[in-house]
Amino acid sequence: MTAKVKHSELRQLVCSQLQILLAQGNLEGAKALLLPVQPVDIAEAIEGLSESMQAIAFRLLGKAEAIEVYEYLDSTVQQTLIEDFRRQEVLDIVDKMSPDDRVRLFDELPAKVVRRLLAQLSPKEREATALLLGYEEDTAGRIMTPEYISLKENLTVTQTLERIRTLANASEIVYYLYVTDSSRHLKGIVSLRDLVLSDPNKSLEEIMTQDLVSVSTDTDREEVARLIQRYDLLALPVVDREQRLVGVVTIDDTMDILEEEATEDIYALGGVQAGDNYFQTNLLTVARKRVVWLFVLLITNTVTGTIIRSQEDILQQVVILAAFIPLLTGTGGNVGAQSSTVVIRGLNTEAMNNLGPGPIIFREALAGVLLGAILGIVATIWAFWLQSDWFVAITIGVSLVAIALLASVAGSALPFLFRHFGLDPALMSAPFITTAVDVLGVLIYFNIARLVLGL
Amino acid sequence: MTAKVKHSELRQLVCSQLQILLAQGNLEGAKALLLPVQPVDIAEAIEGLSESMQAIAFRLLGKAEAIEVYEYLDSTVQQTLIEDFRRQEVLDIVDKMSPDDRVRLFDELPAKVVRRLLAQLSPKEREATALLLGYEEDTAGRIMTPEYISLKENLTVTQTLERIRTLANASEIVYYLYVTDSSRHLKGIVSLRDLVLSDPNKSLEEIMTQDLVSVSTDTDREEVARLIQRYDLLALPVVDREQRLVGVVTIDDTMDILEEEATEDIYALGGVQAGDNYFQTNLLTVARKRVVWLFVLLITNTVTGTIIRSQEDILQQVVILAAFIPLLTGTGGNVGAQSSTVVIRGLNTEAMNNLGPGPIIFREALAGVLLGAILGIVATIWAFWLQSDWFVAITIGVSLVAIALLASVAGSALPFLFRHFGLDPALMSAPFITTAVDVLGVLIYFNIARLVLGL
Repeated sequence: MTAKVKHSELRQLVCSQLQILLAQGNLEGAKALLLPVQPVDIAEAIEGLSESMQAIAFRLLGKAEAIEVYEYLDSTVQQTLIEDFRRQEVLDIVDKMSPDDRVRLFDELPAKVVRRLLAQLSPKEREATALLLGYEEDTAGRIMTPEYISLKENLTVTQTLERIRTLANASEIVYYLYVTDSSRHLKGIVSLRDLVLSDPNKSLEEIMTQDLVSVSTDTDREEVARLIQRYDLLALPVVDREQRLVGVVTIDDTMDILEEEATEDIYALGGVQAGDNYFQTNLLTVARKRVVWLFVLLITNTVTGTIIRSQEDILQQVVILAAFIPLLTGTGGNVGAQSSTVVIRGLNTEAMNNLGPGPIIFREALAGVLLGAILGIVATIWAFWLQSDWFVAITIGVSLVAIALLASVAGSALPFLFRHFGLDPALMSAPFITTAVDVLGVLIYFNIARLVLGL
Repeated sequence: MTAKVKHSELRQLVCSQLQILLAQGNLEGAKALLLPVQPVDIAEAIEGLSESMQAIAFRLLGKAEAIEVYEYLDSTVQQTLIEDFRRQEVLDIVDKMSPDDRVRLFDELPAKVVRRLLAQLSPKEREATALLLGYEEDTAGRIMTPEYISLKENLTVTQTLERIRTLANASEIVYYLYVTDSSRHLKGIVSLRDLVLSDPNKSLEEIMTQDLVSVSTDTDREEVARLIQRYDLLALPVVDREQRLVGVVTIDDTMDILEEEATEDIYALGGVQAGDNYFQTNLLTVARKRVVWLFVLLITNTVTGTIIRSQEDILQQVVILAAFIPLLTGTGGNVGAQSSTVVIRGLNTEAMNNLGPGPIIFREALAGVLLGAILGIVATIWAFWLQSDWFVAITIGVSLVAIALLASVAGSALPFLFRHFGLDPALMSAPFITTAVDVLGVLIYFNIARLVLGL
């Protein structure tokens, strides 16, 4: 695979070719097609097939490859294949998956199927899986792999190299070796790089890194990912309450976690609850996940509507005021969204670690006034041109400045407030900012109108 | 550093302690404080100091550590330090930075300073830097490091281990070794893991992986990051037009790239243009980056306002209709935002690779009708309770369904349309969805009102 063609185009070609070959019943051709293809791409191609074809394509793979491909498959396809295969075939694959991938699969399967599969795993794999399943979701314990290499500190580099040659096939990752004492307490880390570059006669104790970063089993997975990213690590050791090494979280999981967290933030800002797999869930679930947020806004809007209704006396005298309501609340909402977007992203990526809420809110308030003033001048001129009434025009302009200030303060302050109470700023801020800006914005508008127009 | 205290709290402690010690003039104490601290955390602590203190704190570091810390510092602090130091001290640090980090620094510095620094680098480093600076921004060429280990295929494992022991200190990454022919064409890759686990007498040719993934120097950095993520790689080789190996992109850069891309998406959805460092740019720049989007919305809203104004005859007869405008356009905007959020994120993370626009838009349209129906029933009941007028209530309910349908179709179709024309869906869709929903929504509303109320 080289660079001239985009990789994504090559992958699409594999998908469509596989469909054609299977439809023709050309199994040998399909096998040959998949031979040079990477496991993750084979998984994608199989996902694109019809359900009955998926099992046929999957059977074309060699045993070792089948396991790798299976790990990359979407959970719904994994389930379909489980139901489709005879028991022993499934068991072989599930037994050979790495424990952390197996736990991810079990999280998606019905409890009955999980119990049946668990009971039939080999004792060693069953124990490893049950251990991981015992930790809470979204913690380091749940996402770690219990497969790592731990060694004693008195081994030399040469002895270590000999030792891992016999061990390593069993282990998922060998880029770090963990040095532990007799009761499994973590003493240090030796990277494969250090091992290869060191004098062969030195002991592990002499070459290991001791000021190491570790997390406990109940550390939140997002914190785990942020630490791996921050310290440029390839893996992070996980220890239990007694500081004994129990597992390792690797960098490939980290990237997926950070991507999922970014998606959650983006969904929250867009008013969608995150679901694991949008295209596999049915429409009623999708509607349920969105309707809550829409109801919140509906209620907000009815409050705004009630306020507008209570001002019927003004509106009947100066009907044109109604025409500017969308402009004012709309602009306010957007100024607030800008401030909260910047603050929420800053809090979630830890980019605002050094700063307290004070300077940030002050800064956003200034930005709000500045933006309100620029837009206010334009809106005033436009309103005058439309209506030839300076009083109406000035009402619009002044209201816009006040609303922009209110919006930027609400947009930057609420995320801090929610974080302070342990709530996800991305999830909680949006409805409140909208409410504050809409309701207070309309009140401000009508009061300024009464004042300026002398009603 | 262990798990009981949150790492972020420990880091804040280091920051505040450093400030206190430096204010007391206790340089030895500050030095002792920083001794066990990781370079990235030292960089953060220095960033939190006043400008005059930053230089003092930085001078406390040993030479090797200073280079590492310098690479992690924010670009504005890097610049401050450059201006503050005497020339030779700076040159030493800049000369020892790895070429890709140096290029990132040069990207931020004024051209005059870059020229001066370039001229004084050692010839080898100057050449490496000039090469990278020659590639376009945001391409693989610009972010790769030209430091990697390339070897000939006839070397044995033992010979290779001996060779890299003498070479590796110069290289940033040794987790992959690259096998090339005499004209530097990439033939295969050997991971350090394979090397350590293989029979010492085998040749590299026998153990290397040949179906490898590579990119060219002009591949977009986001594509590079996605490939590393997709294939679970630690590094990705970069080749020139003649397929010769010229550099390597490593996974630590990848995580930062994906995070920056996610921030760009989030900012685009929030109506903010991405800037590299929000808190270092001045307020006018911030305002300029936000005002464009607000102007687009202002114009949209004036169009909506004009339409409302043209319906003055209806509004004067049934003033209550004005009270429901925010509810209808607001809900429409939110339904549209939900659809576009899901589609834009799906396109940008390549999660929607397998599906064409057809089924997705159809699905979103169904979701829109469903959501519109649920909300429409509630809004109808509420409107009747408020006004005791079935005609007005039905107008509101029917309009809500129609507007939700329109919004979900616009929200899901526009991102595809913009991508088709090579525009960033996240950046371009929002203004158009808002416009479509606001303008068409109000038109739909008043026309349904005329029909139902017989005006």
